[in-house]
Amino acid sequence: MPQFLSTRDADFEARFTALLGMKREDSPDVDAAVAAIIEEVRTRGDAAVIELTARFDRLALAPEGLAFTEAEIDAEIAKVSAEERAALELAAERIRAYHRRQMPADAMWQDITGATLGWRFTPVSAAGLYVPGGLASYPSSVLMNAIPAKVAGVERLVVACPTPGGAVNPLVLLAARLAGVDTVYRIGGAQAIAALAYGTATITPVDKITGPGNAYVAAAKRRVFGKVGIDMIAGPSEILVIADGPQNPDWIALDLMSQAEHDASAQAILVTPDESLARAVVAAVEARLETLARREIAGASWRDFGAVIVTRSLSEAAALSNRVAPEHLELCVDDPDGLAEEITHAGAIFLGAYTPEAIGDYVGGPNHVLPTARSARFSSGLSVFDFLKRTTLAKMTPAALKAIGPAAATLARSESLEAHGLSVLARLAALNEGEP
Amino acid sequence: MPQFLSTRDADFEARFTALLGMKREDSPDVDAAVAAIIEEVRTRGDAAVIELTARFDRLALAPEGLAFTEAEIDAEIAKVSAEERAALELAAERIRAYHRRQMPADAMWQDITGATLGWRFTPVSAAGLYVPGGLASYPSSVLMNAIPAKVAGVERLVVACPTPGGAVNPLVLLAARLAGVDTVYRIGGAQAIAALAYGTATITPVDKITGPGNAYVAAAKRRVFGKVGIDMIAGPSEILVIADGPQNPDWIALDLMSQAEHDASAQAILVTPDESLARAVVAAVEARLETLARREIAGASWRDFGAVIVTRSLSEAAALSNRVAPEHLELCVDDPDGLAEEITHAGAIFLGAYTPEAIGDYVGGPNHVLPTARSARFSSGLSVFDFLKRTTLAKMTPAALKAIGPAAATLARSESLEAHGLSVLARLAALNEGEP
Repeated sequence: MPQFLSTRDADFEARFTALLGMKREDSPDVDAAVAAIIEEVRTRGDAAVIELTARFDRLALAPEGLAFTEAEIDAEIAKVSAEERAALELAAERIRAYHRRQMPADAMWQDITGATLGWRFTPVSAAGLYVPGGLASYPSSVLMNAIPAKVAGVERLVVACPTPGGAVNPLVLLAARLAGVDTVYRIGGAQAIAALAYGTATITPVDKITGPGNAYVAAAKRRVFGKVGIDMIAGPSEILVIADGPQNPDWIALDLMSQAEHDASAQAILVTPDESLARAVVAAVEARLETLARREIAGASWRDFGAVIVTRSLSEAAALSNRVAPEHLELCVDDPDGLAEEITHAGAIFLGAYTPEAIGDYVGGPNHVLPTARSARFSSGLSVFDFLKRTTLAKMTPAALKAIGPAAATLARSESLEAHGLSVLARLAALNEGEP
Repeated sequence: MPQFLSTRDADFEARFTALLGMKREDSPDVDAAVAAIIEEVRTRGDAAVIELTARFDRLALAPEGLAFTEAEIDAEIAKVSAEERAALELAAERIRAYHRRQMPADAMWQDITGATLGWRFTPVSAAGLYVPGGLASYPSSVLMNAIPAKVAGVERLVVACPTPGGAVNPLVLLAARLAGVDTVYRIGGAQAIAALAYGTATITPVDKITGPGNAYVAAAKRRVFGKVGIDMIAGPSEILVIADGPQNPDWIALDLMSQAEHDASAQAILVTPDESLARAVVAAVEARLETLARREIAGASWRDFGAVIVTRSLSEAAALSNRVAPEHLELCVDDPDGLAEEITHAGAIFLGAYTPEAIGDYVGGPNHVLPTARSARFSSGLSVFDFLKRTTLAKMTPAALKAIGPAAATLARSESLEAHGLSVLARLAALNEGEP
């Protein structure tokens, strides 16, 4: 049974605050091990990557075998069923269409002084996408990371995906092919992150690394941050469902469980003004937990981190949701668009009873890489912006410099930065003397 | 004398690569000390902040004295000269006008399945801006951080600025006032970052912390990242000037020195196809270094990290600049707009001989908080986007779910996520039976 709270309870605020502060993840301290691995790869390159892959993935590779050949990829892709291929293609097409709309416009204008101002977006030149091996090797995540990169215009896009014992996921290779990935390396862990950041004889370094991974991968990404860009460090997944009115409790139960089945430290929360609906959903979850393949994982998540909160109103539910700032927010209510207006912090909103969160994981179009652990208070899901950067532009005319230069010189003097001031004053002096 | 390179030299590539790899900053390892300070503030709140302020800033404060009162701010602001106030007001107005143009639009559309998709931007609720005390306490940086936050719609904006021995910079307080800052705390160091991130009895926590600081502040920002959002960790400043044609060598020399005077580890690089111009600029720098107030700092930067590179062409100069990915790039050439088209990585571009970089530090309008240490390859300067986050929206109709739901169920099965698939299939089954 999950926690059952009501905003009418005297101890509600204390219990809700405790729920917000719950630590759901024990990250093992692998930082020293990761630092050593990175140093190995930096100093010994391919040889270190090959040794570490043999040790951790039980896989013997030659330098020329670090990357899949096109023929190897073709052979693996041929194993994918037509139904799976069609589903992946639909997902890729919809994700591409959504992210194309995100592409921002450049701008350039003249202000009243005659100065030209503006900005220009340019893509990151090369990006590396980490894809976990084993159970968490999701082809959908390959699409969600690679497609925004290609839409942004990244020229060189590579994937690192470990193949423990040689086990390959053909769907991951197909997703990479569909998304336009240039090279797939069969390496993983901190050694893969180090190779992508610093390069080796066979692996050209990239400028940005994205994608999920285990504690070693996360620690390695933190360490190489600055040398290259990284995306967010994702925590365990979470969903908050706000429900009211005549809803199907089983649908809501399945939506809650679709987060819970990811990970025992995932979190699923139901918030509703309707206590009978709350109890019906809890019963539906119990029933589903009897048969779900991942019932142990989902059950542990629901028991340890799940919560059901009964509120006085939908507005109160929205206000509580804003304090949680959930990664995924479902609004299973009569007027989801109206309620969405009250939401200030959420990674993604799923509107109405016909929009289960799982649609967003695969084929909706928006990205499924979203801010976890309440970080939707200050950050956003993955997008084309993660693979673009903005260069600001400024061009003064002599008249513009005469108009605003003196103020710059005044402020430079206030900040005791003499050369700053002189760089403006020398030009103003020449202009005032009519010299070039 | 700085390094003098020519792309015609046989050892050019080796020397240029060494220049790119130069380590300009020794960051002291203060991480253990910072961890202890953060823990103190988390457990003991105001009492710890007050003790640490007494120890590090030689300043005795009561809890109610942690923040400046409005009367105290009024009294300090009254000391600012009319000329300085006018300059700050002009800067604030121009920075506000530029950043208002950055505000992104929300979007919502229907696709061919009838699904509604889109996104919405919302501001971070509360932001904290760190402002260093002492020499590097720049009122211009207060404007550059605080104005984008207010333009983005941040509701509560606070400043933390240490006042060692009680020394206050009236211009910092005026800049905060002009930018709409709500509260200014007279605290600094890791204890200020901890207080902003975790809160104390008198300091309400914020969601995002921006602004520059010393090694302690930088380490504290890294540590609280995740609990709150942070901006980039800035390194020492740099400028690259591409010059050609009839240029005034003294203007270029002053622009190079306006970076070099910031910090002995700043870097100033001149790239030109015109060797005689290169030599004239070097001579002009030597002359300026005889009289500049900060000649020791600027001279050390120029000697240790400065470089002059003679190229075969302007295009070659642009290509080298792209490998550097400089924070500031000046194009002092006949056709700066044309050359700018060849630039793929730079924090900010200053076009033409009448746009000294110092204009951008104060009154140009674009932000002066820019990516350093080659990180313009993958990141951008501060903007309204640092204080906004994007929530994605998706709303299926029954028809849309019928159209794309089966593909989601297929992919869920491929990924062994049963509840994901069932959450879609249960709805499809009801729709096919005509049930709600």
